[in-house]
Amino acid sequence: MDKPAPVAHDVHDLIRARWSPRAFADRPIDDAALRSLLESARWAASCFNEQPWRFIVARRDTDDFNRLLECLVPGNQVWANRASVLMVSVARMTFTRNDKPNRHAFHDVGLAVSQLSLQATSLGIVLHQMAGFDRDKVIATYKVPEGFEPVTAIALGYPGDPEALADDLRERELAPRSRMPQKEFVFTKSWGHSLD
Amino acid sequence: MDKPAPVAHDVHDLIRARWSPRAFADRPIDDAALRSLLESARWAASCFNEQPWRFIVARRDTDDFNRLLECLVPGNQVWANRASVLMVSVARMTFTRNDKPNRHAFHDVGLAVSQLSLQATSLGIVLHQMAGFDRDKVIATYKVPEGFEPVTAIALGYPGDPEALADDLRERELAPRSRMPQKEFVFTKSWGHSLD
Repeated sequence: MDKPAPVAHDVHDLIRARWSPRAFADRPIDDAALRSLLESARWAASCFNEQPWRFIVARRDTDDFNRLLECLVPGNQVWANRASVLMVSVARMTFTRNDKPNRHAFHDVGLAVSQLSLQATSLGIVLHQMAGFDRDKVIATYKVPEGFEPVTAIALGYPGDPEALADDLRERELAPRSRMPQKEFVFTKSWGHSLD
Repeated sequence: MDKPAPVAHDVHDLIRARWSPRAFADRPIDDAALRSLLESARWAASCFNEQPWRFIVARRDTDDFNRLLECLVPGNQVWANRASVLMVSVARMTFTRNDKPNRHAFHDVGLAVSQLSLQATSLGIVLHQMAGFDRDKVIATYKVPEGFEPVTAIALGYPGDPEALADDLRERELAPRSRMPQKEFVFTKSWGHSLD
């Protein structure tokens, strides 16, 4: 199922096509594709080239998949259990070179995950990020060291049939995509003054 | 000047080509291109579809450009003064629906700016984000309201000649791109255990 953004201005196909479905096909992501996804994250920009992103990765055909699945809130487990790969993105919260706080750690993880998600789109893979996971459980399960912070959980797979979803999720899957218009978030000269 | 990432695995051309130069050509970004850039940011994913991103935008042919330029640290002003457009990305730090803190505000601004930067790449425009700016000055100059936080400054333009840069900047412009290998940031089963 495709759900291209109803754009008001031209946008590259890859960006227009990216969305966050919950229905996954029963098809694995092979090694080459998984490496490509992570490679695209690798080449993101970051403050002082710190590269604060880390990824914990579990494939469905491994024992580890259920451990990661159980870190999600129950409402996410019900659909993310059909993902081919689960990940958690993690941020290093300080700079390696001087241990000072990196104000842009979460931001730069976002830059990396965005590249990963567009690479996924280019390979026909879909991705859904979740804030709904147990941060403490991730830290305990994976022994995430101090100074690192789990950011989001990520479900990846090839697109599946929305009809396989429970009613409430199917409804969200089929609902139109919406965003605020540019005039509400693009300002010039002073706050709230829309760019003409 | 192109500087494609020396990738270890296949990556889409758009992602591979994206980089952060400091040399800009003396060529304006027209309205259609500017709207496309912002539109690509608009369609990013965000936690609860909050869309925490805001952009303050100044074009070089406006009085406002110098006001924004003066918010940058001097080391960035010397090259960013040749940008065609300057922006500051700003994050809404709470959820609109309940005023609770949005842990993913900076992260989601990163998702949006990444899409903006890849849209720029597709249009032959380059973009350089900066942490080096005066947050308080941005807030004062643009009357950024409480609950919003300036994230990065962004210089945009068409690529220029690196020879026009000062020696130290030209050296950085021409230096090879580098990132840590995947085994240092992709883990499975437990922290530090590389994915095979």
